[in-house]
Amino acid sequence: MHRTGSEVKPDIALAERLFAELRRRTSDDRGVTRASYGPGEELAHALARREAERLNLDIETDAACNLYMTLRGESDLPRIMIGSHLDSVPLGGNYDGAAGVLAGLAVVSGLAHAGQVPPRDVTVMAIRAEESAWFNASYIGSRAAFGRLTPQELDTVQRSTDDLILSSTIDAAGGRSEALRRGQSHLTPAEIGFFVEPHIEQGPVLVNKEVPIGVVTEIRGSFRYRRASCRGAYGHSGATPREGRQDAVRALATLIVELDALWSRMDDAGEDLTVTVGQVRTDPKEVSFSKIAGLVEFSLDVRSGSHETLARASAELDSLIDRISRDQKVIFDLGPRTGSDPASMHPVVIAALESAARDLRIPALKMPSGAGHDAATFAAMGVPTGMLFLRNENGSHNPDEHLDMADFALGADILLRLCLGPPDFGQ
Amino acid sequence: MHRTGSEVKPDIALAERLFAELRRRTSDDRGVTRASYGPGEELAHALARREAERLNLDIETDAACNLYMTLRGESDLPRIMIGSHLDSVPLGGNYDGAAGVLAGLAVVSGLAHAGQVPPRDVTVMAIRAEESAWFNASYIGSRAAFGRLTPQELDTVQRSTDDLILSSTIDAAGGRSEALRRGQSHLTPAEIGFFVEPHIEQGPVLVNKEVPIGVVTEIRGSFRYRRASCRGAYGHSGATPREGRQDAVRALATLIVELDALWSRMDDAGEDLTVTVGQVRTDPKEVSFSKIAGLVEFSLDVRSGSHETLARASAELDSLIDRISRDQKVIFDLGPRTGSDPASMHPVVIAALESAARDLRIPALKMPSGAGHDAATFAAMGVPTGMLFLRNENGSHNPDEHLDMADFALGADILLRLCLGPPDFGQ
Repeated sequence: MHRTGSEVKPDIALAERLFAELRRRTSDDRGVTRASYGPGEELAHALARREAERLNLDIETDAACNLYMTLRGESDLPRIMIGSHLDSVPLGGNYDGAAGVLAGLAVVSGLAHAGQVPPRDVTVMAIRAEESAWFNASYIGSRAAFGRLTPQELDTVQRSTDDLILSSTIDAAGGRSEALRRGQSHLTPAEIGFFVEPHIEQGPVLVNKEVPIGVVTEIRGSFRYRRASCRGAYGHSGATPREGRQDAVRALATLIVELDALWSRMDDAGEDLTVTVGQVRTDPKEVSFSKIAGLVEFSLDVRSGSHETLARASAELDSLIDRISRDQKVIFDLGPRTGSDPASMHPVVIAALESAARDLRIPALKMPSGAGHDAATFAAMGVPTGMLFLRNENGSHNPDEHLDMADFALGADILLRLCLGPPDFGQ
Repeated sequence: MHRTGSEVKPDIALAERLFAELRRRTSDDRGVTRASYGPGEELAHALARREAERLNLDIETDAACNLYMTLRGESDLPRIMIGSHLDSVPLGGNYDGAAGVLAGLAVVSGLAHAGQVPPRDVTVMAIRAEESAWFNASYIGSRAAFGRLTPQELDTVQRSTDDLILSSTIDAAGGRSEALRRGQSHLTPAEIGFFVEPHIEQGPVLVNKEVPIGVVTEIRGSFRYRRASCRGAYGHSGATPREGRQDAVRALATLIVELDALWSRMDDAGEDLTVTVGQVRTDPKEVSFSKIAGLVEFSLDVRSGSHETLARASAELDSLIDRISRDQKVIFDLGPRTGSDPASMHPVVIAALESAARDLRIPALKMPSGAGHDAATFAAMGVPTGMLFLRNENGSHNPDEHLDMADFALGADILLRLCLGPPDFGQ
């Protein structure tokens, strides 16, 4: 038996210091900005590396500039990995992503300072380019670690702010896009015992239920259309009779209301789904309050933990669009479709996280993750994977996101316990 | 009996020449722009005055720079007035407004060149500032002619493109805003026998029914909110559960669909109504495809020929907004309300226009005007008023609006006949 480590505590002071330094050095008047492969993410990786050096961890980077910081363990059993990303959305918050990396560092720092050698290697991974606000592709860093970026993505996906090609930004950060193009992988699933991603919840569930920790059961997949449009015909608002209208705004409103009704029905049937039209915009150069809109652009984001539910929602969307197009004489063009697959967390990791929380008397709630996370990549690669949600206020992707350090410490306690008594997968 | 004037024809060549000159001198690559009290409108008024001088008409302007061009008649019975506006919307077409003034000039030029003295004075009026795209106020020129602009409007209404105050632009054009502020009127209802505004239809009804001429029965009034908004709360599209959402876009979509259902019900009940949300816009600085929208701005334009219907639609709007705000936890702020009263055309003028069309074997359709027109001001002042719609293609307020000169000539024929044999109001 390994020691239970009741004398060992995560180094919360280290995390607090790093949160403060990150905020100070990657924010301006309004929120934190750490662009994927941009200055903010570079700085965050440099800070993490500096701390890893101070802790005498083994340090590696891969061809995509993901950073691996390893505390050596007693055995060469497949290692434990704790990781998340260090980029943020534009004008975002300080905790989305960073909390997971700092939780890992707090754990290994606690172990190192206590002179406690864990039963297996513990690797903290700082992942690149998770926020798809920057590059229109999901899980760039974690997929690159497994050699799963496609040459097409490397050569065509552009950063939204400066149109730079993904491969160029990787090379400019010191990476080797050529190796990624050949499918070179840094990680091998069999060498990983399990992967846990700690992350702020981003939603209000834990706050509303007054529970500090969530244990994620599945990560929702999605399909999304970022640049969809509905085209009708401009016309005089007073002089165009009802039956002669091709009103793009009315048609889109009908679609939104019908999709909401679909969501409500699927919700009632116990199916996991979210449907969001977050952006709408008529053409400011053409519109007038006294003109029927001939064009409206919009985005659509549909998520579910279930492949089947996503497929059903997609089919319903198609038939709604057919019907509304016919009824209202408009043309929908959904534009490019992107998305990600749903991912189930591993039951043994879920059970181990729940058990650790129970042992530590920390209330924890099993829940799905509505947002996508790099953990989905690890799960898709067959790595036993789990996620720990940390209660946070004010949502995420905004300057007001807030993580209480007491809740952060509870999450680190659970992780530390897992590192000292990892679950057995028969490996 | 007056002569029926079968030998007299409207001067269509004059109108064609002026349409061409107007287009050449007030358009660029994309459409015609004649700003109210701006360069395009100024130029159009200068062209009309030049032609009136060539025809030896009596020329007057009033304190708001409306232009009156009068062919003297045989008697001093209350005069016949034909008029419309010469401004256009930004990037609009060549015919909306101008067609009415040029139809009037074609008629008096035809009379003058034939040496035909009409039974009464015929005044062609070129009205200022009808297009409320420029100033957020209805019927500025025609109301000014009757001394009905308020000091508040003169001193606070600003031009949308340069924020100049209405009174300043009137004075800069050579007008006398001080006189308008005192309520000075140029026109007296009792001195006007009747007023007819010829205008392109702006809608597809005449084109679809293959009828060249419309005789307007009433002008729809309106209420409108140009800068309305719905405020909810931003949230993660995947991480915010259904019941926790305050989705501004979904709430607005619900309002649009419910208002459309209301319109459909009132339409079925034979009530005259149009409902248009022509502009929608989420905040481009805040939104993302993966964020629930916390704010959406929109416009709403509701029109009817009936005061009662407008009042009922307004009450229904209020109760819809109450219900949706409560159900979806959002806040609607409709912003400033503007609008205009519905106006009925005079039955004797309607009958005279129909009778003239019938005599000339010109197919004509009785129909409401969905758009507002200066004729509504004349009707509100108690002047017997009518409108003649000219069939046009491609709607209005856009560079593609098109008026066939053959249809224009039919309208001018009807007006000429009316000038030679005006209806009797017992004046």
